[in-house]
Formats: sequence, structure tokens, C-alpha cells
Amino acid sequence: MTSPVDFHVYDTTLRDGAQREGINYSVADKLAIARLLDDLGVGYIEGGWPGALPSDTEFFARAADELNLKHATLVAFGATRKAGTLVESDPQVAALLDSRAPAWCLVAKSDIRHVERALRTTGAENLAMIADTVAYGVSQGRKVFLDCEHFFDGFAADPDYATEVVRTGFAAGADVVVLCDTNGGMLPSDITDTVTRLRDRLGGRPRLGIHCQDDTACAVANTITAVQAGVMHIQGTANGYGERPGNADLFACLANLECKLGMSVLPDGGLEKLTRTSHAIAEIANLAPDAHQAYVGHAAFAHKAGLHASAIKVDPQLYNHIEPTTVGNDMRILVTEMAGRASIELKAAELGLDLAGHPDTTTRVVKRVKDLESRGWSFEAADASFELLVRDELQRGLTRHFTLESYRVIVEHRNDGSVVSEATVKVKVGRRRVIATAEGNGPVNALDSALREALISHYPQLTEVSLADYKVRILAGTKGTSAITRVLVETTDGHRDWTTVGVHDNVVEASWHAIAEGLTYCLQ
Amino acid sequence: MTSPVDFHVYDTTLRDGAQREGINYSVADKLAIARLLDDLGVGYIEGGWPGALPSDTEFFARAADELNLKHATLVAFGATRKAGTLVESDPQVAALLDSRAPAWCLVAKSDIRHVERALRTTGAENLAMIADTVAYGVSQGRKVFLDCEHFFDGFAADPDYATEVVRTGFAAGADVVVLCDTNGGMLPSDITDTVTRLRDRLGGRPRLGIHCQDDTACAVANTITAVQAGVMHIQGTANGYGERPGNADLFACLANLECKLGMSVLPDGGLEKLTRTSHAIAEIANLAPDAHQAYVGHAAFAHKAGLHASAIKVDPQLYNHIEPTTVGNDMRILVTEMAGRASIELKAAELGLDLAGHPDTTTRVVKRVKDLESRGWSFEAADASFELLVRDELQRGLTRHFTLESYRVIVEHRNDGSVVSEATVKVKVGRRRVIATAEGNGPVNALDSALREALISHYPQLTEVSLADYKVRILAGTKGTSAITRVLVETTDGHRDWTTVGVHDNVVEASWHAIAEGLTYCLQ
Repeated sequence: MTSPVDFHVYDTTLRDGAQREGINYSVADKLAIARLLDDLGVGYIEGGWPGALPSDTEFFARAADELNLKHATLVAFGATRKAGTLVESDPQVAALLDSRAPAWCLVAKSDIRHVERALRTTGAENLAMIADTVAYGVSQGRKVFLDCEHFFDGFAADPDYATEVVRTGFAAGADVVVLCDTNGGMLPSDITDTVTRLRDRLGGRPRLGIHCQDDTACAVANTITAVQAGVMHIQGTANGYGERPGNADLFACLANLECKLGMSVLPDGGLEKLTRTSHAIAEIANLAPDAHQAYVGHAAFAHKAGLHASAIKVDPQLYNHIEPTTVGNDMRILVTEMAGRASIELKAAELGLDLAGHPDTTTRVVKRVKDLESRGWSFEAADASFELLVRDELQRGLTRHFTLESYRVIVEHRNDGSVVSEATVKVKVGRRRVIATAEGNGPVNALDSALREALISHYPQLTEVSLADYKVRILAGTKGTSAITRVLVETTDGHRDWTTVGVHDNVVEASWHAIAEGLTYCLQ
Repeated sequence: MTSPVDFHVYDTTLRDGAQREGINYSVADKLAIARLLDDLGVGYIEGGWPGALPSDTEFFARAADELNLKHATLVAFGATRKAGTLVESDPQVAALLDSRAPAWCLVAKSDIRHVERALRTTGAENLAMIADTVAYGVSQGRKVFLDCEHFFDGFAADPDYATEVVRTGFAAGADVVVLCDTNGGMLPSDITDTVTRLRDRLGGRPRLGIHCQDDTACAVANTITAVQAGVMHIQGTANGYGERPGNADLFACLANLECKLGMSVLPDGGLEKLTRTSHAIAEIANLAPDAHQAYVGHAAFAHKAGLHASAIKVDPQLYNHIEPTTVGNDMRILVTEMAGRASIELKAAELGLDLAGHPDTTTRVVKRVKDLESRGWSFEAADASFELLVRDELQRGLTRHFTLESYRVIVEHRNDGSVVSEATVKVKVGRRRVIATAEGNGPVNALDSALREALISHYPQLTEVSLADYKVRILAGTKGTSAITRVLVETTDGHRDWTTVGVHDNVVEASWHAIAEGLTYCLQ
């Protein structure tokens, strides 16, 4: 449909994406993200607003020296000159120049109400500000993009004025004029309608861009719809990070353009890096990757329904909208209550365990899984527990590195209001009996510390291992029985994580099981 | 555009939404969610698949006796009869009948490849299965919906066969035939194209529905686009829960239909319950609410204090795509602000407490709620704790029926493998000091029993009171702090239930707070 040369993939993770609540990138974080995006193959990376934020000024200084971008052009974001001033003497425009970025993205008001009420100037002066600043950037050898803020609301309120803003941008030499749904209130039909009407008014083949926010949960759809209406430049952010519900998720947009519309918008091999890039940026942003994110989420191709498992095994294409490896993701089969032999075999294969040639073992594994799941266990999120179970059956017994004799956990709320937890563990490690006591900020933390304390002199590799996450679910009992507790424990050795499960009517005992299995998995 | 009578809002949170990894509803959870959805005003609630899952069968049995739905009709999900059998002798169809649900939703294959490769039968037999099962449901006085699985892929592969499936459904008496994008691979343009072509083939005004999955991040947009193409029945789930990336988020769909297309699809006052309903269901599902969810997310209208802060204050309409209170949400300008006066007053009024005439009390309540929520408390699902807090401020102090001196809880895993829990509580009840010890099947149960034991001779009404449900959520700490634990306790006196909350880094202490507050609420 379009070749990569004509089409712009424009990333604003480092500027608009950083507006997301809770995100605070260091300059080093920003450089690392820019390298990842460049490696993915985006065309433009908006690095920040030099002059407005000191860390953005520093980013551009370091980027000019340190970043050797293969694919991407670095873009500095800024605003048109202030009303009633000369562009040459505007300090904010000077900061753009100082940034040494080869491209600028200038934000301009395109809604006459914002011009008058927020900017407190006239429509004519706003047009002059746009013309002057765009022309100045072009005269300094910069490629200039014009972001028309609130364009869709502005076009609805006063189409003549909004169109005039776009015309002014092009006349002054803007490479692309970008239509922004700043408040994010549009639906795909609004996008089609406005882009079509604007193109009719402009005539010819205007180089238009699109910038969507996700306030109607339609940002990705709106972006794709704009491309179908003739836009050739899309702005989005990694994982859809951004203010309020966020920006258009650039990764879903790219996958839709490549996989659904047959466009080639990334360099060869780029699309396969999508999942890895998404997760790496989430790590840098210190946000948990969204397991349910389209295309790149851990659960994006995870099938739970047992009734389909046998059919999936025969013909996976019938149940996946694309081949998961296209975007660097995997198909996963969830082990659930409804699981049959087919999904157990698929799941084991995924973990590198071949059950296909061992029908008797498979039978035993299926029986144990069904039996445990009927009593509240869940292996869906506990791959390590499932792997231990399968290995136990395949090898006819796991190596036991330690066995429990007893433990005791005490939680006290004392007269003075203080709350203390203490655990004592008695275990056999090889032939030795070890007793260890530890405190903690809760009963499970104390128990975990005491067990680790007991084992660490025999297994020094456990020094690197720690409890990364802990989840508790109370399951209502069936009639006549009391509720049971399911605990999921995520353990990490700093390089990789694994999850184990424990179930008991006593939360401490359930936790014990999951913690002990987490360490057993590590020692296998 | 359309009146609520003609238009179906169909929720499948309890069936398709439960396919989401990690969701495991108890029957009590499902009843609670059904009540919330009914109160919101959805037209149809799909409760599960009776016969396929024992817990779903139990849900329908209890629903028929216990649920008094005001707005919604309960729907049982099932499949068309097995190939080569009689519908009257199909046990799965019998389970539908036994469920006593007044409406059925039957899933049918509409992609000829799935008929042949997964179902392993002929196109003709599949049509007969549809005709027989739909007609049987209708003959038994049920309203029947037909879910056409993989419809969009099927129509692309063989439009004649897919159309024949739809015609067969209508001919047999289906009220609505629902087009499902089961693999979730469609874009809005595909939806418009297929729905339009199908309607041309069918002629007249076919009663069509839409069911979208979010694999291209377009589920909400696809649903809205389908409505614009003439569909009059939408299927979605609370918060978009569902398999893989999930289903269409019903809440975003409803807000888009009402706020953007001007349709009236919920009863009066329904839309304002959107945010509260979303968060309450997340609590029941034991999932963290998504702060960045469109319309209902905590950050959906949060503006990071930036260049427009003062302009937002002057003219918020210019910076919000809708007025946030329309959907029961709040605008936030600063990151810290959590609860607004309006929602506090609204919630208090709902509990029968008039804060409108007490601005100073409202200020104190808002301050306490904000302070507690910033430390991990959540009152969204803990109405009783919220009511106690408001009463405390309104009455300038609650009557304290007991005060804690200290407690001690011990959990032991003994040499013989037995696990025992024991709690001792020292409390002041009036002027008397009471010491009580109790055992339990876990530390919290033991603590609850000991406290009840200590109080019951003074407050015999507590004999009828018991702990009905218990939920634990581990909240990640911010950098450098440890995780904290939030506990929700549901207490019942056999007639009604109430929920209280406790937060602490020690799970036992958090539980103590919630349990004690649950009994305090009962004694007020």
C-alpha cells in the first residue's frame, strides 16, 4: 500500500508518553529507550522539549554526541513563538536550535476557542506565529512538523479557521501537518469524516499526520482509520503510555498496519522485535508489562478454553488472528480446570518437556492436574509448579534438597501497639537437622526468611534468590467445607522469575508450600 | 438514535470474561457481579454455561432463587446440539433447560473451515444443529440468541455459507443473530464492510448483534462501528476482561454510545454508576483497577500539572472530552487528588447520610479518605468502612463497644504434619477486661473466632454474625518501601452483608482491623 520512504512512523514516548502519571525517566533511561526504538526501526523519535525541561535539554546534548541512530531522525518538540514577539528573539525557539536536533515538531493552536481563551490572542496573530516559526526552522535547515493541537474539536467548531491553520503551516514549509485529537474524544467515524472534509478543502495530496489519545478507547482504531483516509504520518507511544488513558499504542498500530493492511512500515526484521521492545521499555519505565496488551502482551495469544485445545493442536491458524512469532510473541496454552490431554502436552512442550512419546506419563499428569485443580490449585500462572509436577512424573521422583520437620509462626499485636512477626523453621538438609528463626513484617515474610536462613549455608546460590511477588486468593469452599486459600509466589534470581502455587485452608501453610516449591525449582 | 427498548446491552463478564487468565469467580462473586450489572442497567446478563462447569450450574440454581433482577434478563450460554443426535436427548441442551434462565445464547460455528476441521461434520448438519437447537429453545418459551463464532473470518472465507448460518438462525426463531470476531483480528473498516455486505444479502432489517475481542486493540471501536452499521445488540464485558487481550470493554462502549452518539442505552442515572461499577467488579475479580482505563480509570481525567493548568481551571470543558461526572468519575489536576467532594457526597447520600448540608464535615471526610487512600486503603468496595468514617465525622465520634489491648496468633506445622492455628485476644468490653482464646483453620479465622468469643456474652446479637468472605490484595510498595496488604472482609448476619477494609504491612493486623470494623458496624 505504501512504501516506508513515504510513510512516517513517529514515536513520542519520550515526550508525550512521559506525561503518564508515575513515569519519571532519567536522561540515561531516555537514551536507552531511543536506542530500542531505533533498533525497532521507527522513523522519528521525539526526544523532549528542550528549554522547557532541564533534563530534556541535557538529553539532546548527550543524544547529539552519544546516539548513533541507524534508522531514526531525532526530533525536538517546541511551541510556536510567543504572541507579539519576534521569532529570532524567542528563548524557547532558541533552545530548539541549540538542541541540534535535525527535525522540529512545533505545537500550534488550531481551535479558535483555545487561541482566544487560553492563548489570549487573535486568530490572525496565531497564524503569524505559526508562519514565522515554521519558516524560521526551515530557514535553519530543519525539517519541521506542525502539531495542530485540538484539531478535531477545532474543525468541528470552526472548520474555516482550522483549515487556515493547516494551510499556513504548509505555506511556511512544514513537511507534515499533524492533526491531533488532544482531548481524545473522537470515534473512527469522526476521524474519517474530518480528514476527508479537510482533504477536500485543501485539494491535492497534503502530507497529513495523525496523533490520537485513548479517551474513548479508540486511539489505535482512530490512527488506523486516519491512515485509511490518506494520512501518511502516525504519532504514537510505546505501549500507549501517555496522559489520562494514554496515547495510541504505537506497537499495536505498527502490527495492524503491517499484518492487517499489508503495509511495510518498519525495516526488514523490525516487526519481530515488537514484543521484546515493548517489554524492555516497560522495564525501563518501571511499569509492569500489560499481560493483556494486543500483539505483545504475555497473554495476547494465551488460550484458556479447554474445548478448543484439541482443535488448536490440529490447526493453530484457526484460533490465532496472526502467527504469534510474526511480532516476536508466543502462543501459550493455559492449564485449567477444563484442560484435557492436548493442552497438557502442548503446555509441557512449551516448557521443553516432551510428553508426546509418553502416553502413560501424560495420563498421570492429567489426573494429578485435574485432581489438584478440583481442590483449588491453579497452574495457569504457576509454570514452575507445573514443570515440577511433570518432571516428577517423567523422572519418577524429584530430588528433594530439604524436608520440613516443623515450623511455628507467631504474630503479636502488643500492648504498646507494635506488631511483630517471628518464624522458626526446623528442616532436614541432607543428613543435617537445621533450626532457624527470623523476623519479618508479616507471617509469610518471616517464614520465607527463616527457611532461606536454614538453607543458605548448604546452598549458597540461594543468596541471589528472593521473593519478588506474592498474591493471595481466597476461594469460597463448596457447600459444607470452609474456604481455602491459594497463594502464588514469584521468585527471582535476578535474571529470571518463576511462579509457584500453594493451596491450603491455612494461608501460612499455603504460603509455605509455594515458597518451598519456589526454592526447590531453583535447586533442580 | 435508538431507544433502549430496541437496543440490547448484553454483558458476558460472567462467562466470556471469566476466560481471562487469573480470574476464578466463586458463585457468591458471580451473584454479586450480576447485582452490580443489573443496578447499572444492562439488559442481559450471561451467567455461564450450565452443564459444562459445575459452578455455573450452581450459579443458575441460586440465581433463580436469590437474584431479583430489576432491569436485566438472565441468559444461559450453551452450544447447538451435537452432530448426529436429537436435540431432545442432548444433555448439554437439557442443562440449559434446567438452568431456568429465561434466555439462551447458543454458540454455533459459522466458518465452514471450523465446521469441517474442528467440529468434523458437514455444513448441512451444522445448519440442522442450529435450526433444531434454536427452534427447541423457542418451543420451550425461551428467548434465543445465536452467537456465530468466527463469523468475520468465516464470511471472508465463504460468504455464502456464513450468510446461510445467519438465515438459518433467524428462520428457526432466533431473536438476534450475533456476529462474533472470535479471534479478534478485525479493524473497523472490516466490520463496516462485512456488516454492510451481510445486510445487503439478508435484506430487510435483520436483528444483528456484535461480539468483539481486542486482539487488534480495536474491540471498542469495532463495536461502535458495528452499531453505526446497523447492529442493535452489543456484547461486552466489565473492564474488557476476557481471554487473550480481552473482550470489548462494555463500559467504554456504553459511554461512547451515550456520550458520543447520543443514544440512550442505560436507564436514567445508569451512566453515572459506570466508574463505581467498574471498580467494584475489579475488586470482586481481585484485579487492580486499571488507572488508565477510558472513562472510568482513576487517571482517565487526570491532567499532569503542566502548561495548561490555569487554563484548565478557567475552562475545563476545553481540556476534557466529556464532563467526568457524567460517568461518575472526577477530574484531577494534581496527581495526589483522589476523591472529589461530589462523589463523596453522592456515596454518602446513597448510604442514607446527608452531607450536602454539612460542608465542613464533607471537607473532613474528603481529607481522611484522601489520606487513607494515599496509604493504600480503598473504600470503593468497602461501604461499611466508609459509612463508619462518615458517621464518625458527622457524630463527632462513634460509640466504641470494645477496645483492643493485645492479641497473639500462632500457626504451627507440627512434626506429625498437622497444621494448627490459635489466637488469644485481650479486649476491654465496657469496663471489663476479657481474654479469649480460639482455634481456627488459619490465623485470621482463629483471630476472628477469639474476638467473637470475647464479645458474645456482652453482645448476644453477634451469635448470628459470621465472616462471609475474605479477600487479600498485596499492593506493591513505592521504591524503597515494602509491599502493603489490603484486606476486605465481608460480614453477614444472615439477612444482609457488609464489607470493611483494613490495610497494614502485616496481613494479620490488616485483617484484625477489617474484622473489628465489621463487628463495630454491626453494633452501631
